[in-house]
Amino acid sequence: MNARRRSDDRTETIMRTALDLALEVGYAKLSMEAVAARAGVGKDTIYRRWPSKALLFLDAVLSSRNTGLEHPDTGDIVADLREVMSRAADLLARPPWGPLYQDLIGEAQHNPDVAAALNQRFIQPQTADTLARLKVAKEQGQLAPDFDLDLAFEILSGPLYFRLLITQQPITQAYIDRLLRALFAGMAPEPHPR
Amino acid sequence: MNARRRSDDRTETIMRTALDLALEVGYAKLSMEAVAARAGVGKDTIYRRWPSKALLFLDAVLSSRNTGLEHPDTGDIVADLREVMSRAADLLARPPWGPLYQDLIGEAQHNPDVAAALNQRFIQPQTADTLARLKVAKEQGQLAPDFDLDLAFEILSGPLYFRLLITQQPITQAYIDRLLRALFAGMAPEPHPR
Repeated sequence: MNARRRSDDRTETIMRTALDLALEVGYAKLSMEAVAARAGVGKDTIYRRWPSKALLFLDAVLSSRNTGLEHPDTGDIVADLREVMSRAADLLARPPWGPLYQDLIGEAQHNPDVAAALNQRFIQPQTADTLARLKVAKEQGQLAPDFDLDLAFEILSGPLYFRLLITQQPITQAYIDRLLRALFAGMAPEPHPR
Repeated sequence: MNARRRSDDRTETIMRTALDLALEVGYAKLSMEAVAARAGVGKDTIYRRWPSKALLFLDAVLSSRNTGLEHPDTGDIVADLREVMSRAADLLARPPWGPLYQDLIGEAQHNPDVAAALNQRFIQPQTADTLARLKVAKEQGQLAPDFDLDLAFEILSGPLYFRLLITQQPITQAYIDRLLRALFAGMAPEPHPR
């Protein structure tokens, strides 16, 4: 039991250290050596659990906090989506997390392990949570019976990522509202006034 | 004149060599040294014009060919968008260009010069071409007067990039058709049948 607890503590120390260092020096300059030195462990100890700094960093970010991106259910699907999209934009598209998140996605483009971990540990749970909220709205008649839930998720997420990763245009509340209006004018049983 | 022509020839040789090598060994293993050696020029000659392999590669790709992603105008806006989106998916999301394009976007996440060059030389002209085609359609009454052209472009592009860069789900013709249907059911003056 004590050995197990010591190992858990050490795991947590390493992840917290990686996170602190990434926020201090940026992802590009984060090194396993620096994490090992500051956490007071051997580099081998780190590599045994995390084969790359990208996987350590991803684990550290996702273990460190509840992302706070779960959908509320106030009974108003548009308001609830708006709330979570705004929180996601605040968290993922602005410092301190924005640049680190972009670096991770950059890394995922040439590292299939990082891409898979990012998908499984962040994107898929986030998708499932959004789809669950949309499904309730559909059952309550707030969305048309043929509303394409999977596509709706991608129409709401895709343009935000396009701005974050490609055009670098700001993701404002006004932009989120335009997206929601376009989606729901098209797909709701009663078009919202535009 | 001869000096200028020799310089142009050399520029072209370097770019063609970079492209050939990238297609042979992949972007990660492409090196300025290897390009210099095969092109028969000094490394300094390359670095004088291209400060990084990312910028050389970007230049090489964009100079090597017409992308073939200009919109036709058959008079049917949905058919024309469908055609270009399918071509873009074939070109940018599949080998041999797909992985190289992903690498470039990955590089753009931590290199502002690459991000700016990618935007200015590829994304912006592509956006302008799409918007010009949408504008004609609006003038011809194929789109509602309040159809939000800029947003429409991002709703069509964003989900494709989301699949390419984040979820790695395939970009099929059926997917492109779902996207077009969702967009035009919402924004056209007469909803298309679904």
